[in-house]
Amino acid sequence: MAKEIAKVKKYDVFERVFSGRTDGNPFVDYDIKAVFESDGERKEVTGFYDGDGNYVIRFMPSFEGEYRYTVRGSFSDTEYTGILKVTPADRNNHGPVRVRNRFHFAYDDGTPYYSVGTTCYVWELRDDKLIDETLKSLKKAGFNKIRFCIFPKHYVYNLDEPRSYPFEGTPVGSYLLTPENFMEYDYRTTGNNWDFERFNPGHFRHIEKCIRALKKIGVEADLIVFHPYDRWGFSNLERNVEIRYMNYIINRFSAFSNVWWSMANEFDILPNRDDSVWDFYGNFFLEHDPYNHLRSIHNCLRLFDHNASWITHVSYQRMDLYKTAEDTDGLRERYQKPVVLDEIAYEGNIQCGWGDITGEEMVRRFWEGAMRGGYPGHGETFLDKEGILWWSHGGKLKGESWKRVKFLRSILNDTPGLGLKKVRAEWDCVTAVCEDDAFEEETGYRIDYFSFMRPGFREFNMKDGCDYTVEVIDTWNMTLTKAGTFNGKFKIELPGRPYMAIRLKKAKF
Amino acid sequence: MAKEIAKVKKYDVFERVFSGRTDGNPFVDYDIKAVFESDGERKEVTGFYDGDGNYVIRFMPSFEGEYRYTVRGSFSDTEYTGILKVTPADRNNHGPVRVRNRFHFAYDDGTPYYSVGTTCYVWELRDDKLIDETLKSLKKAGFNKIRFCIFPKHYVYNLDEPRSYPFEGTPVGSYLLTPENFMEYDYRTTGNNWDFERFNPGHFRHIEKCIRALKKIGVEADLIVFHPYDRWGFSNLERNVEIRYMNYIINRFSAFSNVWWSMANEFDILPNRDDSVWDFYGNFFLEHDPYNHLRSIHNCLRLFDHNASWITHVSYQRMDLYKTAEDTDGLRERYQKPVVLDEIAYEGNIQCGWGDITGEEMVRRFWEGAMRGGYPGHGETFLDKEGILWWSHGGKLKGESWKRVKFLRSILNDTPGLGLKKVRAEWDCVTAVCEDDAFEEETGYRIDYFSFMRPGFREFNMKDGCDYTVEVIDTWNMTLTKAGTFNGKFKIELPGRPYMAIRLKKAKF
Repeated sequence: MAKEIAKVKKYDVFERVFSGRTDGNPFVDYDIKAVFESDGERKEVTGFYDGDGNYVIRFMPSFEGEYRYTVRGSFSDTEYTGILKVTPADRNNHGPVRVRNRFHFAYDDGTPYYSVGTTCYVWELRDDKLIDETLKSLKKAGFNKIRFCIFPKHYVYNLDEPRSYPFEGTPVGSYLLTPENFMEYDYRTTGNNWDFERFNPGHFRHIEKCIRALKKIGVEADLIVFHPYDRWGFSNLERNVEIRYMNYIINRFSAFSNVWWSMANEFDILPNRDDSVWDFYGNFFLEHDPYNHLRSIHNCLRLFDHNASWITHVSYQRMDLYKTAEDTDGLRERYQKPVVLDEIAYEGNIQCGWGDITGEEMVRRFWEGAMRGGYPGHGETFLDKEGILWWSHGGKLKGESWKRVKFLRSILNDTPGLGLKKVRAEWDCVTAVCEDDAFEEETGYRIDYFSFMRPGFREFNMKDGCDYTVEVIDTWNMTLTKAGTFNGKFKIELPGRPYMAIRLKKAKF
Repeated sequence: MAKEIAKVKKYDVFERVFSGRTDGNPFVDYDIKAVFESDGERKEVTGFYDGDGNYVIRFMPSFEGEYRYTVRGSFSDTEYTGILKVTPADRNNHGPVRVRNRFHFAYDDGTPYYSVGTTCYVWELRDDKLIDETLKSLKKAGFNKIRFCIFPKHYVYNLDEPRSYPFEGTPVGSYLLTPENFMEYDYRTTGNNWDFERFNPGHFRHIEKCIRALKKIGVEADLIVFHPYDRWGFSNLERNVEIRYMNYIINRFSAFSNVWWSMANEFDILPNRDDSVWDFYGNFFLEHDPYNHLRSIHNCLRLFDHNASWITHVSYQRMDLYKTAEDTDGLRERYQKPVVLDEIAYEGNIQCGWGDITGEEMVRRFWEGAMRGGYPGHGETFLDKEGILWWSHGGKLKGESWKRVKFLRSILNDTPGLGLKKVRAEWDCVTAVCEDDAFEEETGYRIDYFSFMRPGFREFNMKDGCDYTVEVIDTWNMTLTKAGTFNGKFKIELPGRPYMAIRLKKAKF
């Protein structure tokens, strides 16, 4: 029996490594569990085998003060106990993101979180130099979420081997693949050689490093658990292997406050599973993740039934070529959950319709979604000589939309209370008000967004006798111009360009 | 009994004026009818009272050769007969436009008619100078259809009095109207003073002059019979007055080959009539118009049931702010009739969502509609110091879309056979082929349109072993660039701008 006293900040990761048994297959044969108790909470957590005889327990405290803990399991005959002193959180660490105000998000400490995300599917499986560049770009752009895969990706512009694999073994290699033949590749008939009973701890250790680096710059890690773009057989594992894998990532990753679980990218094109499998897996996360991180499932052609109680928010890939973010308010209405538009096509110029929209259209989709009370996601797919497309590999941002997305985020941060919603005001613009406002009363805060339209002016008729300060927002040129203070009937001049908005605030607001 | 020998060209208007009774009310009390007979056809036509004791018979022959005719009626005790020698049609007169190939149009002589229309609601009720300017603009732009009203229009940017009125009487005048109060105006409580039993022949004579002028420059006159934008009481006449009016315009206008009947603009917001009234009126035109001109009915919020047999083609005002011309193929499928998109918003910068889209978006909607086998319509609503907005008053074209619409018309004229249709080729572009082609065979002619997307290249895989000549179309910059001749698998480079298309033709095509 060994006792330790340790210190950790609230929402940070407390970690203890124990030596344990190495005979047999430690990934399968032994377990390690701990209980953490304080006046604020009691949590049971499961640890994991990290190779080299090392068993690891991680814990993220949600309360300040003193925790007692006990560690036991078949990994060792010894039982460990200890004291953990939890000090106040770092100024920049607000804890995990939670659903708040039904359609919106806030960090655990109540700080509003306006999701402005991007997607770089396997940025973390590239070399250190590129990873570093991606992190710099993320910080510069002000994104606060990134979606990426734990498994490597095989797809157009994704034919390179990843830096590591989740399992022990050797891949067949990519030397025979070309952009022309890659779609015909069948992992079942090629020479991949994996031991699905043994994880490759280095793969996960590296991903943790990336999760930590994201946390440092305020970016949530929206981890894609399963996905279909595969040449290694990872999209079609045996169920027991998949369950062991889910356990492993829960036990390794869940103590990181910035983790989200995306059960799948394009769940509906993964082989050999019906919706009940996803329900089982989603509930598995609900039951086993001690911190209740956000859980979602992303579609290709068919939306998953988002009424499922394990789903915390809608993760939407647009279902139509033309109307994308315009679906936001319908999805809110239907599922009564936050709507994250994780895929509304990417700014770029590749040959595919999902990766060839303009910066203007991308920003328009962001504003459409945001003004309807949802959270659109970004991505870039520009043709590149080196094959470094942001959407999969990260690197440098080349487009025009990311700057404007940052501007939108600053506008969202101005929202009084938490979150916007669309109200029916005029038929030909999207009018956003505060989630908690009743528009009938014309309270406080209002943004009218004109999208691709370009009215030369707009008229208002505010009946409550209050003064309103009015600003004209150019969402493309990123300017906010004071128009003046008005009440009753008034007219606001606009420059006759698309992508404009008008913001009203009660003068005493 | 008086006999005359006259000459007229096929599809032109033969007209004879007779003196007749003037006691009582000639508009109501007397009739004049004629029968025209040749080897090709036998037509009964009704004439009309033109004021000053003049009764007029008009006839448009559809065959060359000799017609005999007889004129009789209560207008006179005399019966008139005559011989009409019909000579070949003018080189530029192809007769009335008919539905051909189910979803398309051709002139009566078989010449394809690709409708590229515009809307100027009351252009013909302005002064001569402006009318002349409108005609010049129409010619320059190459439009071949214009929608306009027989009754004057009362609406925003439409507060001036028209040059004339359809009935005898005096209007209350517009001196008290402002852009702020005009919507509250109620013709029922103001001083309009009309004799609805007496038409004002000058009003109709002037419109005929305009119809003739349009014919001269190859423009179809899509006449709006009823519409709701009214301060004179013309939108809510007694049924018997409306029937007398329909008779009058049929008898005056139908001999002009370029007439189309639009039963209503926004039928669903005209007061006091349910759909059975429209069916009755539509069938009235079907039965009384001897030339069977095209008949349609235009919607505001709700589409009329276009299965009605009197409707020759769909006249569509878009039902959604975002998807407009994209509805074309669905409407074709549903009604099995040509689809004319008479209102898909207007290029302009006024304060209203129906009149503030960019030239780019207008042209995009044209191509979307045209590549789906439909016929989009144009309009312009630019703020103007003189209040001359093309959409109502004509004048000069100020926008950017009209030039590109002319370019599109030249592309449509290249279509082999008659008409395009959309086929399912790739999910992320609109692929048009000839209406009579089965795409499975990949015959002949094909246009892939990329809309707002901007792929850097596209790949093709033509399996029939034929050579294809490939051209890149820039729909905005109006260029057609040869890419070369290809077969089998090939790749076509694109400039990475929106609004591009690729056209394929079989080399021996």
